[in-house]
Amino acid sequence: MTDVLLRGGLPWGLSAPADILVRDGLIHSVGQGIDAQGSLVVDIAGQLVLPGLVEGHCHLDKTLYGGPWVPHSADDTLAGRIGNDLGRRAELGVPSVERIGALLTRMSEAGTTHVRTHTDIDPLVGLRGVEAVREAAARSPVEVRQVAFPQHGLLTNPGTAELLEEALKSGVEAVGGLDPAGIDRDPVRHLDVIFGLAERYGAHLDIHLHDGGSLGGWELELIIERTRVLGLGGRVAVSHAYAFGQLDEAYQHRLIQGLAEAGVAVVTGAVYSFPVPPVKRLRAAGVTVACGHDGIRDLWGPYGSGDMLERAMHVAYRSTFRGDEDIELALEAATYGGARLLGLEGYGLAAGDRADLVVVPCGGAAEAVVVHPGRSLVMKDGVVLHN
Amino acid sequence: MTDVLLRGGLPWGLSAPADILVRDGLIHSVGQGIDAQGSLVVDIAGQLVLPGLVEGHCHLDKTLYGGPWVPHSADDTLAGRIGNDLGRRAELGVPSVERIGALLTRMSEAGTTHVRTHTDIDPLVGLRGVEAVREAAARSPVEVRQVAFPQHGLLTNPGTAELLEEALKSGVEAVGGLDPAGIDRDPVRHLDVIFGLAERYGAHLDIHLHDGGSLGGWELELIIERTRVLGLGGRVAVSHAYAFGQLDEAYQHRLIQGLAEAGVAVVTGAVYSFPVPPVKRLRAAGVTVACGHDGIRDLWGPYGSGDMLERAMHVAYRSTFRGDEDIELALEAATYGGARLLGLEGYGLAAGDRADLVVVPCGGAAEAVVVHPGRSLVMKDGVVLHN
Repeated sequence: MTDVLLRGGLPWGLSAPADILVRDGLIHSVGQGIDAQGSLVVDIAGQLVLPGLVEGHCHLDKTLYGGPWVPHSADDTLAGRIGNDLGRRAELGVPSVERIGALLTRMSEAGTTHVRTHTDIDPLVGLRGVEAVREAAARSPVEVRQVAFPQHGLLTNPGTAELLEEALKSGVEAVGGLDPAGIDRDPVRHLDVIFGLAERYGAHLDIHLHDGGSLGGWELELIIERTRVLGLGGRVAVSHAYAFGQLDEAYQHRLIQGLAEAGVAVVTGAVYSFPVPPVKRLRAAGVTVACGHDGIRDLWGPYGSGDMLERAMHVAYRSTFRGDEDIELALEAATYGGARLLGLEGYGLAAGDRADLVVVPCGGAAEAVVVHPGRSLVMKDGVVLHN
Repeated sequence: MTDVLLRGGLPWGLSAPADILVRDGLIHSVGQGIDAQGSLVVDIAGQLVLPGLVEGHCHLDKTLYGGPWVPHSADDTLAGRIGNDLGRRAELGVPSVERIGALLTRMSEAGTTHVRTHTDIDPLVGLRGVEAVREAAARSPVEVRQVAFPQHGLLTNPGTAELLEEALKSGVEAVGGLDPAGIDRDPVRHLDVIFGLAERYGAHLDIHLHDGGSLGGWELELIIERTRVLGLGGRVAVSHAYAFGQLDEAYQHRLIQGLAEAGVAVVTGAVYSFPVPPVKRLRAAGVTVACGHDGIRDLWGPYGSGDMLERAMHVAYRSTFRGDEDIELALEAATYGGARLLGLEGYGLAAGDRADLVVVPCGGAAEAVVVHPGRSLVMKDGVVLHN
C-alpha cells in the first residue's frame, strides 16, 4: 500500500496547518514539512481535516433510502407509527439490503466511518433485520455496530427477549431498550432483562428514552443506579432523553452528576421539535455525548440526509450554540463522542491512530458544521474512498 | 424576447405534468402538448415547477455572507447581541453593498425571486443600511422590499421615529417594530407610533415579537385590535411570535381567530430552538403564514444558507410535519404565503401570472422541501437566470 501524504491541511484541534503521512492504514506522523518521497501527495491546503464521522444512532434496517419517495402514512402517535411500521414493512420490502447499502454509500461519501444502528427485533421479523444489515455492511467500508432493538415491545411482545439473546449470541454488539415505562409498561422488569443480557454477554446497552418529564427523569435514575451497581460504566447509553429539557435545573444537575459518575452516555439527534439534552452542561460534567440521525427516510418520517456534519448542525442549532467553541461541541459529539460511545480504539488524529480521515473544504470546525459543504476527501484505514 | 417552453415538468398543484409557455415575461399558457414552434424548449420532464420562492423575513443589511468566517462574539442575551452588533458594525464594514450583493446572488441561484428584509435604522447608522440594500438590489434580479426596522429601540432611542418616517418618505415599503414591551418598554406608545406611520404613509407593518408567554400574547391582542380598528388588514404582520408556543390551546385559539379576522399575517423562521407558531392551525383558520431565515451569517449568529427550500424544511421539521400535505404547508409559506405577505400581484403558476419560476429536480413538493436539491432552473420575469 503506497503511503499517502495529505499536504497542508488543518487537522482539527491544531492551531496551524500540518502534513499527515498515512502508512499501512495508520497515521504515521503529523507535522510540518514531512518528506513526501515515495508517497502519493494530496494537496489539501486551506482545508480542515477531521477524524471519521461517527453516526451514533440510526435505524439502517428501516430505511427506504435511494428508492422512490414514499409519502408518510402514519398518524401522529408513537403507537400509530409502530403500527404503520409493522403493517407496511412487507409491502415496501423492509428490511432491504439494497436500501441499507444505498444509505451506507451515502454515509461514506459524507465521511461517516462508523455507525451504531438500532435494528428491530420482534417475533415477526425475527433476526432478518440483523442479517440484512450485516449483509449490506459486509459490502461497505463503513464499520457498522448493531443494537438488538425491541422496537415493538419487550415484555409486551412475548418471544422478543429470547430473540435479543439470540442476536447477542450471533455477535450483535449491543442490546437496546425502549421507554421501559411509557411503552413497555414495567420499567423495573424491562431494565432487569436488558441489563441482565448486557452483563451476561459483555454487550453494550443503548436505551431509547422518549418518556418525558418526571417519568423520564425517574427512568434515568433507574438506569444510572443499575449501571453503577453492575459496574457497566462506559458501556451504557441513553438515546434521546427528551425528559431532560422538561426538568428543572436542580434535578437536571443531579441527573447529570449521576450520569457522569456512573459512566452513562447520552445520544441526541436534535430531531423534530423534541427537547435536546443540555449538551454543554453534560460535556462540562464529563458525560459522553454522541449524536445521530435517528430514522433516515423511513416509515417513521421522511427526513434525514445521512450527513453527520449536517446532523451536528441540527444539534448545535437546536442548542442555540452561536460561538465557535460551542458549535464544536456538536462536532465533538459526531466524532470523538461517538467513538467513546462505541468504544473505538485508535480513533483520532494523532500518530498511531487509524487513518480514518475526512477533508472538508473550509477553514474551521464551526464553519464545517454550519455550512457542511461536500467532503473533498474521505479515507478509511488509509484507503481513499472518495476524492 | 424569445418564447420559452418548459416541457413536461410538474407544476406544483397540478396532478399531471404540463408544458409551460413563457412569453413577454408572463406565463402565456399551461397545458399538455403546447406547440413549441419559435420557442426555446427546455426539457424538464420528471421535475417539479414552483413559483419563485419568497424570503419573508431576513436582514440583508447585517450580512457578512461571502466573506471570511467571523466567529460569533456576543453573549447569550438579546441585549448582548444588540450591543455587539453596534460595537462591531464599523469594524466589519456593515452594511456592505458587496456582502448584500453576494447574498442576493446566492438567494437567486436558490430560486428566491422576492425578499422582505428588515433594515436597521437608528441615529448612528441613519439610512445607510437602506441605501446599501437599495444599491445591491438595483444590481440583482431579486425584488427586495424593505422594512424600516428600529433594531436598537424606538422610544428608547430618540431620533429613531423621525428616521423611520424619513425612510418611508424615501420609498421604503414597510415600517417595523420590535418587542414593544420587552425591548421598548412602552408597548402602547410603541404601537401607536408605528401604526400611525403605517397609516399615514400607506405602508405595510411587520413587527418583531420575541416576547414570550402571556406578555407576548397580550401584545398580539394589541396588534390585532389596532389592525382591526384602523382597517389595516392584509398589511400587518407579526414576525417570530414565539409566545404562541407557550400559551394554552384555548388562548392560542382566540388569538388565531383574532389574527384571521383582523387580517394579520404571521412570519416564522423556525430558528434555533424557539417555539414555532402553530402553522397548521393558523392556515386552517385562514391566517397568512410566511417564512424566512431571519439573520444569515451575521453578528447575530452564523447560521443560514439563503435557500428557502431548506428554510421550509426547518419550518416543517420543527412543526413535526411528516405527511406530504403537512410538509407542503411549509412550502406554501415560502411561496404563496410570502406573496400574500408582500401583496404581490400576478404571483403563481397560472396563465397570466408573472413568469417567476423555479425548477427542482425531484418528483414532488414534499420531497423538494425535505431534500432541497440544487435548483435546475430559475427564471425571473421570463428570463432564465440559472440553468
